[in-house]
Amino acid sequence: MPRFRATLAYDGTDFAGFQIQRRGRTVQGEVEGALARLAGRTRVALLGAGRTDAGVHALGQVVGFELERAMEPEALRRALNGLLPADVRVLDAARAAAGFHPRKSAVSKLYRYVLDLADVQPPQRARYAGHCPHTLDQAAVRAAAALYVGRHDFASLASSGSSAATTTRTVTRSEAVFEPGRLVYETEADGFLRKMVRSMVGGLVAAGRGATSVEALAQALLARARRGWPAPAAARGLTLVRVDYPSAAGQS
Amino acid sequence: MPRFRATLAYDGTDFAGFQIQRRGRTVQGEVEGALARLAGRTRVALLGAGRTDAGVHALGQVVGFELERAMEPEALRRALNGLLPADVRVLDAARAAAGFHPRKSAVSKLYRYVLDLADVQPPQRARYAGHCPHTLDQAAVRAAAALYVGRHDFASLASSGSSAATTTRTVTRSEAVFEPGRLVYETEADGFLRKMVRSMVGGLVAAGRGATSVEALAQALLARARRGWPAPAAARGLTLVRVDYPSAAGQS
Repeated sequence: MPRFRATLAYDGTDFAGFQIQRRGRTVQGEVEGALARLAGRTRVALLGAGRTDAGVHALGQVVGFELERAMEPEALRRALNGLLPADVRVLDAARAAAGFHPRKSAVSKLYRYVLDLADVQPPQRARYAGHCPHTLDQAAVRAAAALYVGRHDFASLASSGSSAATTTRTVTRSEAVFEPGRLVYETEADGFLRKMVRSMVGGLVAAGRGATSVEALAQALLARARRGWPAPAAARGLTLVRVDYPSAAGQS
Repeated sequence: MPRFRATLAYDGTDFAGFQIQRRGRTVQGEVEGALARLAGRTRVALLGAGRTDAGVHALGQVVGFELERAMEPEALRRALNGLLPADVRVLDAARAAAGFHPRKSAVSKLYRYVLDLADVQPPQRARYAGHCPHTLDQAAVRAAAALYVGRHDFASLASSGSSAATTTRTVTRSEAVFEPGRLVYETEADGFLRKMVRSMVGGLVAAGRGATSVEALAQALLARARRGWPAPAAARGLTLVRVDYPSAAGQS
């Protein structure tokens, strides 16, 4: 059967997350529903590159699925956008190679976290940025961000409900940029554990506020235990920006 | 009575505009309601610097009002934010000079319009950016933006329902910047007519798409007639960013 890949953008505010659950509206559920209607079948299985949590947004989630008939990708994109609710959009669609798997074929993922630092958060930022009405020590935040770079066991930053086989990941980018009134944090890795990026931001904030030292944070990372790691930042500030694949993969 | 000024940010999506109307939820109505509750009075009149339309946002709307008792501005800000709905926030409050009038004392206003140009607009942009899925001629857009600078009669760009005494305004800044996938337009003037900024953007888009030439647009501006001017851009892309006052005004 012809295999496709598509890039999705969604506003995570009103979703219980990407992955289908027994209860709650999910991105996977909405897209599978649109695909099933399009294909006239009971269900079309959808694979996603990252299982974003409730409230987390995406500008570049990648999904894969199979259809019985070959459709022109541009027509497929339009048809899906006509069937999907307004908070999910297919940005592009393409034919994919037979072996393409959105998660397993991925080489790296880029997440962005926006944290408003002003005393009062403007309402139009509240859906897409966390809020921390405190002055952060910029040098401490940058030093904490540098801790994450490299191959580490991130068990301390993983949600207790994580089912990942290994908690070791390689972070290739961890960059905290201070803009007027806000902190923009970007991190790229070969993969992320559940709540890992939000825990990374929680660590930055704790270091920036002086609630913990960068040295203590380094120790807490080495300890490989969830306890002792600062609380994760709010989901609403997080966006899955991009998923990268080997240049030859995914296209057929 | 002690006079105050405050800076408001609001998400205009669910408002029928700033100004109180017979029907519909308004920013002025919500803030007057909060002030009345705070003051224990039937009504506290609120003056605003700009009457933003339905769907238009603000990051720096300035308002003025009087209270019977002197309140510490920081306490006033906190109290109001505790009473206001989540889509309006008081960013700061201060005592104002007796003669301070948010609109009449203003020297200039800065508006920003964001227009997404990608084929498909990501859902998380849809509340705060217009959408034009077309390639725009950047040179034509910039040439059209330059037309607005200076002292002109903007009758061609005013809403027919406008009650302004004069339609002449002085535009000191009109700048179209192309970012990846979107156009960010900023304009500053001593004042704007109703729907004027959205009409300015409508002109840019018409020139950028080749629907009109920059020369024809210049003629349409001189004609001082609403007919013949391109349709205004959607309200949701527009934000009142800042209102400026003479350095001595407004503070007491």
